[in-house]
Amino acid sequence: MNKIEQTMHVIREQISSKQLLEGSRLVSVRRMASQLNHSVSTVVEAYARLVGEGLIESRAGAGFYVCGRHVRLPIASNMQPYHREIDPLWISRQSLDAPTDMLKPGCGWLPESWMPEQSIRKALKVVSRLGADVLTNYSSPQGHLGLRQWIARKKQFNDQYIHESQIILTDSATQSIDLVFQLLLQPGDVILIDDPCYFNFHVLAKKHHLHSIAIPMLKDGPDIKSFTEALAFKPKLYLTNSGIHNPTGAVLTTQVAYQIAKLAESANVTIVEDDIFADFEILPAPKYAALAGLNQVVQLGSFSKTLSAAVRCGYIIANPNRVDALIDLKIATQFSNAQLNAEIVYQALTDSAYRKHVEWIKNHAVAAMNQTIQRLAALNIKPWIIPKGGIFLWCELPLQLDAAAISKICLQHGVLLAPGSSFSQSQQARHFLRFNVAQCNDKKIYDVLALAIQRCTSTDSMLME
Amino acid sequence: MNKIEQTMHVIREQISSKQLLEGSRLVSVRRMASQLNHSVSTVVEAYARLVGEGLIESRAGAGFYVCGRHVRLPIASNMQPYHREIDPLWISRQSLDAPTDMLKPGCGWLPESWMPEQSIRKALKVVSRLGADVLTNYSSPQGHLGLRQWIARKKQFNDQYIHESQIILTDSATQSIDLVFQLLLQPGDVILIDDPCYFNFHVLAKKHHLHSIAIPMLKDGPDIKSFTEALAFKPKLYLTNSGIHNPTGAVLTTQVAYQIAKLAESANVTIVEDDIFADFEILPAPKYAALAGLNQVVQLGSFSKTLSAAVRCGYIIANPNRVDALIDLKIATQFSNAQLNAEIVYQALTDSAYRKHVEWIKNHAVAAMNQTIQRLAALNIKPWIIPKGGIFLWCELPLQLDAAAISKICLQHGVLLAPGSSFSQSQQARHFLRFNVAQCNDKKIYDVLALAIQRCTSTDSMLME
Repeated sequence: MNKIEQTMHVIREQISSKQLLEGSRLVSVRRMASQLNHSVSTVVEAYARLVGEGLIESRAGAGFYVCGRHVRLPIASNMQPYHREIDPLWISRQSLDAPTDMLKPGCGWLPESWMPEQSIRKALKVVSRLGADVLTNYSSPQGHLGLRQWIARKKQFNDQYIHESQIILTDSATQSIDLVFQLLLQPGDVILIDDPCYFNFHVLAKKHHLHSIAIPMLKDGPDIKSFTEALAFKPKLYLTNSGIHNPTGAVLTTQVAYQIAKLAESANVTIVEDDIFADFEILPAPKYAALAGLNQVVQLGSFSKTLSAAVRCGYIIANPNRVDALIDLKIATQFSNAQLNAEIVYQALTDSAYRKHVEWIKNHAVAAMNQTIQRLAALNIKPWIIPKGGIFLWCELPLQLDAAAISKICLQHGVLLAPGSSFSQSQQARHFLRFNVAQCNDKKIYDVLALAIQRCTSTDSMLME
Repeated sequence: MNKIEQTMHVIREQISSKQLLEGSRLVSVRRMASQLNHSVSTVVEAYARLVGEGLIESRAGAGFYVCGRHVRLPIASNMQPYHREIDPLWISRQSLDAPTDMLKPGCGWLPESWMPEQSIRKALKVVSRLGADVLTNYSSPQGHLGLRQWIARKKQFNDQYIHESQIILTDSATQSIDLVFQLLLQPGDVILIDDPCYFNFHVLAKKHHLHSIAIPMLKDGPDIKSFTEALAFKPKLYLTNSGIHNPTGAVLTTQVAYQIAKLAESANVTIVEDDIFADFEILPAPKYAALAGLNQVVQLGSFSKTLSAAVRCGYIIANPNRVDALIDLKIATQFSNAQLNAEIVYQALTDSAYRKHVEWIKNHAVAAMNQTIQRLAALNIKPWIIPKGGIFLWCELPLQLDAAAISKICLQHGVLLAPGSSFSQSQQARHFLRFNVAQCNDKKIYDVLALAIQRCTSTDSMLME
């Protein structure tokens, strides 16, 4: 046994003898090195291998923990679930299943009244007059040519010059990530995600049996120091919302994007760039795909956020080899995607009213953002940053209040919130809430929030007495 | 080491020392037992465990083989591919991507001219006048209520009485299988499939890293003896087209269905019943779900075959626990399915013209079946059975000709065939072709087939000289 294996052996023994329980923290790398009289780099490598084996995991800025306790595989029914109030799947189901009179400042999409329903109506009528092949046949494996050409043109806004052959259509961005994970990863692989990040990224990582390392999200992009350190764990892939970040609303700066792209390139980490909020950008945001190209980056998006979530249509932009492999994978898992949806989306996007409507949405989002910030300020709920665009506002509760407890009370009063812990692997976001400013117009939301804050505050003071 | 482990050790040694190469056949259970002086049951258990480990595999009626040579993982790019002419994915891509003047007797769907395009047109117009929630919002997690109620009523044709809460909508039958595999199976699990079966079942099994045991399909259903023997390998699941079988066109008898259901129940094997050709049944076929109920059976289907393949919409019928878990899995992998598609399908299905159109399709399929049988008979191509319904005709070539070679020549002349080997894990179907009688009207198909047969016959005789 060499020194790395010795170190691994010591930790394995501690875990199997229950000296170290599931969910408990390991001693720091430096301390372990001094305890065993090994070098720091030996211990780093040993910890990295144990992460690779799935025995321990790294939590951003918080050290290493024994796997098991807080991990929940959505496909394994016998494991301990999240608390309901912060369980990503439960929040998604509640949002999707909510009665129409439920207020949903925590949901991730626009209210119906903001959506371009007339463009969809018109598109349906146009499509109803098209040929039988469009109406009844399977789509080509790669998907609607005109729509792929439209996407290629659209990407020029962000200085990306791609060809339609580098695009494959899917049914959603979520499905795109699922396909890309299937293509590029094996169970046990290590990936990087932002902390906080879109909560479904955690669910997808668990579903594919991956180990995810959370990189703290700063106000100008991911923390470069943490990203560099995480490369020791040989991650295969970095999954991120790069343009407008979910849930924080932060926009990546060109400087940070350049550093991250270089680091990813040097360590052969594929960047998977979920560009789903691109339509909300006021000014073009830097894109990893534009910087580092499609050998380093896979980009994906959809039309759910500004056109329609009822017409499922997404896309993946990748190099030709990957597009080719993704076509095979798509045939295997869904045979074909919905050609009719692609046609409806194409007709709606090429309708001149749609472009105007997107401008209308952007302007309204800015106004709603300002108004929401003011109304939350009255409750002493403070935004982490003032976003440059988009619909998300990442806010800290006053008095270190627990967002899950607040969410529970609000839900009882018909207001569905998105508590921070469901977005954060490191669990450092428990005092945060994500607000969707487009869903924050109703006065009742603020009344219910005030009530919940009051109740939690008095409970806290009661407990302290 | 006990005797079972000894037996496993012997075989492992033979494989690692290359005495037994990948793809080569192991000696029979009886012979191995006599060679090692162990009991037959010891060797059966050893072989079963090695199948479980993925080292060897069982091929229906043909014994045990060392894994590796002929297996292709669609997601592993470094493995040896199928020959192009029998590669399921390649055939699917060709069929989906075929130029409009390509003749496709090998493809799995109806020609456009057979599809109820007017029902789709009408549905699109109706839907264009519905509310904004239908046009732009995410669907409820379980899917369109009216459509689920329609499906529940429809199943009464096959004596199945289910409630809408036992149905979850998906985007296709293929996706339904993918979801069910994710829910019920782990990598390395053993499943049973028919031999031959729909070629995508092989692709899906490989994608999920499963070991599949092929059960020979007889004229009245799966071979009960092989099914019984296969239970020794502790399969978790049996995936089948039960109503009208693809590719053979065989219809399960009630007697065989009863035996298989009892066997599955006794060994706790979940039957996954892909009911995708139900609309083509002239008389109701027996269904495993009707016999053994939803604790033993998961049933799935779609509307691609008789309504539209451009509107992707499928469903899964399962017990409430499984429906609940599938909802979580659906949110994780695709967030929501297409509510607009479900609405279009619902409007089209409830249009009275649609029911008449399905009757028209059935009658036309019967006529096309008779005509195709006659025209193929002139070429000495003989059906394995005369199907009781549906569009598939499973035919044997004359003179033991190789279907892959015939397919290659036909493709060069603009005719896409479906050679038997792509449907058959045991590779015993290399003299067979699957014809889709709805795509067999063009005289050119028979001219090109005659030419290919002539060429292959003369090559064969040249080689024999």
